Amino acid sequence: MAKRKNLSIDEYVNGVLNSDRMILARAITLVESNASHHLESAQQVLQKILPKTGKAIRIGITGVPGAGKSTFINSLGSMLCQDGKKVAVLAVDPSSSLSRGSILGDKTRMDILSQEVNCFIRPSPSGGTLGGVSRKTRETMLLCEAAGFDVILVETVGVGQSEAIVSTMVDFFLLLTLTGAGDELQSIKKGVIEMADAILINKADGNNKAAALRTQQEFNQALHLLKPAKSDWETKAYCCSALKGEGIRDIWNVIMRFKTERMNSGTFQEKRKDQALNWMHDMILEQVKNLFFGHPDIVEEIPQIELKVVQGELPVTRAVEMLMLKFRDLRVEENQL
Amino acid sequence: MAKRKNLSIDEYVNGVLNSDRMILARAITLVESNASHHLESAQQVLQKILPKTGKAIRIGITGVPGAGKSTFINSLGSMLCQDGKKVAVLAVDPSSSLSRGSILGDKTRMDILSQEVNCFIRPSPSGGTLGGVSRKTRETMLLCEAAGFDVILVETVGVGQSEAIVSTMVDFFLLLTLTGAGDELQSIKKGVIEMADAILINKADGNNKAAALRTQQEFNQALHLLKPAKSDWETKAYCCSALKGEGIRDIWNVIMRFKTERMNSGTFQEKRKDQALNWMHDMILEQVKNLFFGHPDIVEEIPQIELKVVQGELPVTRAVEMLMLKFRDLRVEENQL
Repeated sequence: MAKRKNLSIDEYVNGVLNSDRMILARAITLVESNASHHLESAQQVLQKILPKTGKAIRIGITGVPGAGKSTFINSLGSMLCQDGKKVAVLAVDPSSSLSRGSILGDKTRMDILSQEVNCFIRPSPSGGTLGGVSRKTRETMLLCEAAGFDVILVETVGVGQSEAIVSTMVDFFLLLTLTGAGDELQSIKKGVIEMADAILINKADGNNKAAALRTQQEFNQALHLLKPAKSDWETKAYCCSALKGEGIRDIWNVIMRFKTERMNSGTFQEKRKDQALNWMHDMILEQVKNLFFGHPDIVEEIPQIELKVVQGELPVTRAVEMLMLKFRDLRVEENQL
Repeated sequence: MAKRKNLSIDEYVNGVLNSDRMILARAITLVESNASHHLESAQQVLQKILPKTGKAIRIGITGVPGAGKSTFINSLGSMLCQDGKKVAVLAVDPSSSLSRGSILGDKTRMDILSQEVNCFIRPSPSGGTLGGVSRKTRETMLLCEAAGFDVILVETVGVGQSEAIVSTMVDFFLLLTLTGAGDELQSIKKGVIEMADAILINKADGNNKAAALRTQQEFNQALHLLKPAKSDWETKAYCCSALKGEGIRDIWNVIMRFKTERMNSGTFQEKRKDQALNWMHDMILEQVKNLFFGHPDIVEEIPQIELKVVQGELPVTRAVEMLMLKFRDLRVEENQL
C-alpha cells in the first residue's frame, strides 16, 4: 500500500471544516494516536477547530449485548438523516456492536444507515484498548461537530467502566434494555440506571409487546425510588421496536424536550461547562504522563529497572524513587541547554 | 478530641512489624492520604516494610449486593482464625458490604469474625471515592502482610471498575453468586467471570440446594466455552452455604490447590511479578500527577484558568497549554535555586 502523504495542520483543519470524510477520518486517527509526536499536532488541530464545535447534541447509548443497539442506532440515525440532519456514530469500546459487527462480517444491521450520505460511522479501532479509545472520544466528538454533524451518537457496551466515562461526555445518556432485564434493577445495573436520562425497552413488538409495557411500568416505579428528587429531569422508561421503527420518533422527541427544558433552565450549559473542566483535567493528566513516559531517557531506562524489579533485586518503591529522581535531573539538564 | 501525636517513620515501621493494630490502622490511613506531604512519609514506610511482605495469600472476593459476601467472609475468616491463621479483611469501595454494614448499623454479619483476636477488619473510609480507595489497596495489603497476616481478603462490589482493579492485585479472584444469576452469563457478568479463578454459588441450602447444583452445572458448562484453554488453571463453579458454614473448607482447599499448583509451575510468581510492574507504573503515574497538581503555584493558578474555561473565554486546549508551560517554567526556577 502506498504511503499516504502527511497532512499539514491547516490541511487537517480545512478538511474537517469542509466536512471532507477522508480527512475527518484521518484527523480522528491523529487524535487517537498514542505516539508522542502526534500529540502536538493533534493539540494544534483541536485548538483551531474548537471555535466551530459545541452545536451538536451528544447522545450516549448503552445496553447489554443483545439489547439491539446496532438496530436502534440504524433506525434512529436513518430517521434523522431523512429529516435532513447529519449524524455521526462513534463506538467507544472494542467490544461494542459497531466493531463486533465488522469483525464478524455482520454489517447488515447498520446497512441502511451506512448508505446515508449524511451519516459518518466510526467503529472503534480493532485491538484498541478501552482506555485508549474512550480517552479520545471527546476529541472525536469535537472533530465531528467541526465537520458539521448535528447529532453525535456514541455507542458503548454496558460492561465495565466505559459507560461511566461516556456518560460524563454526552448531553443525554440512553440505556437500551429488554423485557426480562428488570430483575437486574436491584443489583448490577443500578449504577447505569442512575446515569441514564431515559430507559428504552427495545423489541416491544409482536408477542413481546405486553411484557415490554409491564417492564416499562416496573422501571418507572423503580425509578421513582432510585433517582434523586432534586434533579430537574425525570428519567422515565419508554418502549420501542428498533426493528419495526416504532417509538423511534417518540424517543427523539424526549431527547429534544430534554434539550429545550435544560437549555431554558441553564443546566444543559452547566453540564457542558463541568465536562469542559473534566476534559481539561484529563488532558493535563495525559500530557504530564507523556512528559514522563515519553521522555527518551526514561524510555531507555525503564526496561533495566523493570528487569531488576521482576528479578526481585529492586523494591518497587525504590525503583519509582530512582525514576522520579532521574526525571527531575533530566528536566534540569534540558532546560539548561 | 485530643490531637494524636504524630508518629515518626520508625514508629510506623516498628509498630506495623510488631503487629500493633492501632499503628497498622494509622499506617493505612497514612498511605490512603491524598495530601502531598503524606506521600513522602508513606513511601518511606512502605520502602522499609517491603522486605517483610509477600508471604500472605491475597484473595479478591466479588459479587453483586445480596450474594452474601459479608456472611461468606465472616464464615471463611472465622474458620481460618480457628485454624490459627491471621486474617485481614479489606473493603475496596464505599458501597461494599463492609462499609455499608457499618453505615446502616448492621454489623451482625461480621460479628463472629470481628471478635477474633487474629482478625483485622478495615472498612473503606466513608465518603472515599472509588479511585482513591482502590488506588491504595495494594499498599494496604503490603502493610497487613508486614504486620504478619497470612490471609488477605479483599472485598469488592460487582459494579463498575473496582473488581477489574482488584483482580490485578490479588493471587486468587473469587466470584460469589446466587442461583438464578446464571442468566447473566451471556451479558453483564461475562467480564467478571473471565477474571474469576473460581465461582462460588452461595446459599446452597434448604429448598435452594437443588437449584444451586443445577446452576453450578450450568456455570461449569459455560466456563468451558468462556475460559481460554491455554490457562493452566481450570475455573470451576462450587456451591456453599456461608450461613450454615457448608462448603467453606472445600473452597479454601481449592484456593490452596491453586496456590500449590501455580507455585510449582511458576505462574504464581509470574503473576506477582507482573503485578509489581503494574504497581510501579501506577505509583509513577501518581507521583508525576502529584508533581503537577500538588505544586503550590499550579494550585494557585488553576482556579482562575478554570473560571475562564467555564466562562468560555479560554478554550480547553489553550488552558492546558498555558498550564503545561507554567509547569515547565516552575521546574526550571526551582531547580536553579
